[in-house]
Amino acid sequence: MTKSLNEAAMEIISPILDDPQRYGALISKSAGRATIVDMGIEADGSWLGAKMYVEAAHGGMAELTYGRMRVKDLDLPSADLMVDNPMLSVIGCEAGAWALGEGEFVPVASGPVRAKARADRWSQKVEYEDPSPYVLLQMQTARFPSDETLAFVADACGIPVANLTVMVAPSASLVGSVQVCSRAFEQCIISLARNTSFDISTILHGYGSAPVAPVIKDEVLAMGRINDALVYGGSGGMWLRHPDDEEIRRVTEGLPFSAQAGDDYGKGYAEIFATYGHSLFNIPAPLDSPAKVMMANMLTGSVFIHSREDRP
Amino acid sequence: MTKSLNEAAMEIISPILDDPQRYGALISKSAGRATIVDMGIEADGSWLGAKMYVEAAHGGMAELTYGRMRVKDLDLPSADLMVDNPMLSVIGCEAGAWALGEGEFVPVASGPVRAKARADRWSQKVEYEDPSPYVLLQMQTARFPSDETLAFVADACGIPVANLTVMVAPSASLVGSVQVCSRAFEQCIISLARNTSFDISTILHGYGSAPVAPVIKDEVLAMGRINDALVYGGSGGMWLRHPDDEEIRRVTEGLPFSAQAGDDYGKGYAEIFATYGHSLFNIPAPLDSPAKVMMANMLTGSVFIHSREDRP
Amino acid sequence: MTKSLNEAAMEIISPILDDPQRYGALISKSAGRATIVDMGIEADGSWLGAKMYVEAAHGGMAELTYGRMRVKDLDLPSADLMVDNPMLSVIGCEAGAWALGEGEFVPVASGPVRAKARADRWSQKVEYEDPSPYVLLQMQTARFPSDETLAFVADACGIPVANLTVMVAPSASLVGSVQVCSRAFEQCIISLARNTSFDISTILHGYGSAPVAPVIKDEVLAMGRINDALVYGGSGGMWLRHPDDEEIRRVTEGLPFSAQAGDDYGKGYAEIFATYGHSLFNIPAPLDSPAKVMMANMLTGSVFIHSREDRP
Repeated sequence: MTKSLNEAAMEIISPILDDPQRYGALISKSAGRATIVDMGIEADGSWLGAKMYVEAAHGGMAELTYGRMRVKDLDLPSADLMVDNPMLSVIGCEAGAWALGEGEFVPVASGPVRAKARADRWSQKVEYEDPSPYVLLQMQTARFPSDETLAFVADACGIPVANLTVMVAPSASLVGSVQVCSRAFEQCIISLARNTSFDISTILHGYGSAPVAPVIKDEVLAMGRINDALVYGGSGGMWLRHPDDEEIRRVTEGLPFSAQAGDDYGKGYAEIFATYGHSLFNIPAPLDSPAKVMMANMLTGSVFIHSREDRP
Repeated sequence: MTKSLNEAAMEIISPILDDPQRYGALISKSAGRATIVDMGIEADGSWLGAKMYVEAAHGGMAELTYGRMRVKDLDLPSADLMVDNPMLSVIGCEAGAWALGEGEFVPVASGPVRAKARADRWSQKVEYEDPSPYVLLQMQTARFPSDETLAFVADACGIPVANLTVMVAPSASLVGSVQVCSRAFEQCIISLARNTSFDISTILHGYGSAPVAPVIKDEVLAMGRINDALVYGGSGGMWLRHPDDEEIRRVTEGLPFSAQAGDDYGKGYAEIFATYGHSLFNIPAPLDSPAKVMMANMLTGSVFIHSREDRP
Repeated sequence: MTKSLNEAAMEIISPILDDPQRYGALISKSAGRATIVDMGIEADGSWLGAKMYVEAAHGGMAELTYGRMRVKDLDLPSADLMVDNPMLSVIGCEAGAWALGEGEFVPVASGPVRAKARADRWSQKVEYEDPSPYVLLQMQTARFPSDETLAFVADACGIPVANLTVMVAPSASLVGSVQVCSRAFEQCIISLARNTSFDISTILHGYGSAPVAPVIKDEVLAMGRINDALVYGGSGGMWLRHPDDEEIRRVTEGLPFSAQAGDDYGKGYAEIFATYGHSLFNIPAPLDSPAKVMMANMLTGSVFIHSREDRP
């Protein structure tokens, strides 16, 4: 591509870098001169900034629209995302899939940095090399990254730390809530990749929606609530070219949270999270997918859908 | 902020100034060389121009999306607004709160001009100084402003009249309908400010939706109809950091039109308007708020909602 | 207008020309050096590219938003379009109304090229002259246009073939599906123009919505399916200034597909298409309009709506 994923991402967030106050951001420099863009730890964040965060996460290959979704009595804003080229923009870039170390509370990197470093198993599945010397790292975290973490990331990218821009927002913030709730489609494709032998490269176009869950200060409860929004209120769809309708039918039926949650269905996600040692990496893939999934095969015209209408 | 509210607003409307015909606008100069941008008095207006009008009204700190809302048999476009930093963008800028004189049919100024002049009691509540020498005044009116009015406004801003850009659209126009119907959130926060002792500076993020009411030529009936859209079809939400859930509960219950209208509930707004001497300033605040209100406390995670489901 | 329809369209699609891979496009040159932008024949297309396709089709005088629409069990993306100045942007520009030759499978030109060539009966109804030496031709087709066709078009525009940019996407593609499903309002105004003596120049503002139908590889079935989305799921609205409410009432009742389809109601569109010799030009206008139509008279405030709620 003429404009690389990191170049496009940096262009998308440039209004925030130019005028942080306008977007509810706070900008600082790390010891190694990385640019830290706080969107929700001490900063208030903003709707417009959250949209930039999400579109930059996909290297510019997605569009976020704020719609409206009725959830019981609430008319909540929804994060409606259209996703182009998901192998590149999600598997190779946006997904929260690069664990920066080991252990229970390890920081996780997402966004264009993954397309540059290609240090996790998902980004390595995609043929892509990003020539940009400037790199965007995004982290869903309540703590600023350590200098060691930043050095580790810059090293994996082959760039100086000073060329790294880091956007951080905890689950318990507006930007955190928007960015997680925009992951309904990512959940589908990652769940397929982790949990089945389905050839995800047949997926050409995707979309997802979920209500933007109201924030709660406690980070664990906030994480639970935004995941509740996804697994009980989210909807993901994909258009694919696949030779075998039967296989699509099979994976569609197994994909939604509702189909796999068993006795966990109806539980708050914070409780589910606790069951699996508070680590997203331990949660079985079938429990990390939206309420409703649609798969449309462009070769045959068949459309498969699976959901559980009796939501709690 | 690097870019002031008036600077951002002028940038947003610059496509209209460059190519008025494309946006259904008519541009002229006042005697004092102010730039008059007619969006609906003699001009037809446009959807794209109306979006610019609304986003400029907030100094660029809001995004308008046209969605769809079903109202009985009608599938109407809706004005879905996301609002950042409401103390600054609404209380200090967008709200229609600066009466330019006295009496029943006094012209009212809204938009970035208020952040520059700081001549009304709401904008004075916000710490903000706009260095821009160019200022945008917006008026919901069927009559072009007089030279006296323009001189008065320029004087209050400390700028020459020639530096003033004035956008006008009557209630009975497309742009007028869109901009009023985008005020569902403004209604909430202004109603709280006028009617309660609630600390509105705890409100960090807002959103609102209402159907865009079909226009009718008569200005009073048009004004009534677009307010009907708000008070019977509008929905406003806000995310706040407030220490006292009980106080939020109390104001939420008192806030929606439905809760306060009493015997006026079900009446057309034109009739209500007449009751109060045809002046928006006389209408009690509780009658000037949307059908449904949601308040989410980010500190405690509590969500409060109040509405009257049995809409007429 | 300062910026002509073709100039605006070329500006809108310039990101695709600069970085085709990012938008799922494939660019090539014809023998005569016209620029061919494939958005769906051999190319995959994209949501972001489809949005540019549609907005360019209207010379920049429309905005496409991707919303969500529930159709039975499916939560499909919807193409929600707001249309400014429909006489110019639709009748004079966007409509698929210029048959490039004769016969059953004749290629059809749409988009800004029509405003330049003014070679069909609809574009001739609009007073407009486009000075741009660069012209955008759009075609819903599964076959690349022949050199003869390109020469014919360039000649009709009075420009060299090398100044022609041609965007192509078949019905059986993402971009094809989005662009057809964005035509709910066009269907209304063209149906009025073809089928009644109604003065369409009284229509000042329009909007339309339809679900984006999942693609199927077969071109005829795909064409059928996307038209099903329009005639059974589409909704069009218009705001007009018309002296006679009675006439509006009459045409509104006759306009929607549901009102006119008779025994064809409930049939798939592919079947209807076959009945009329597989030519869109043979299909009676009343069968080419959305499920639901709303007309709002800005002079009188009357709102007329017609639909058939018992959709199959």
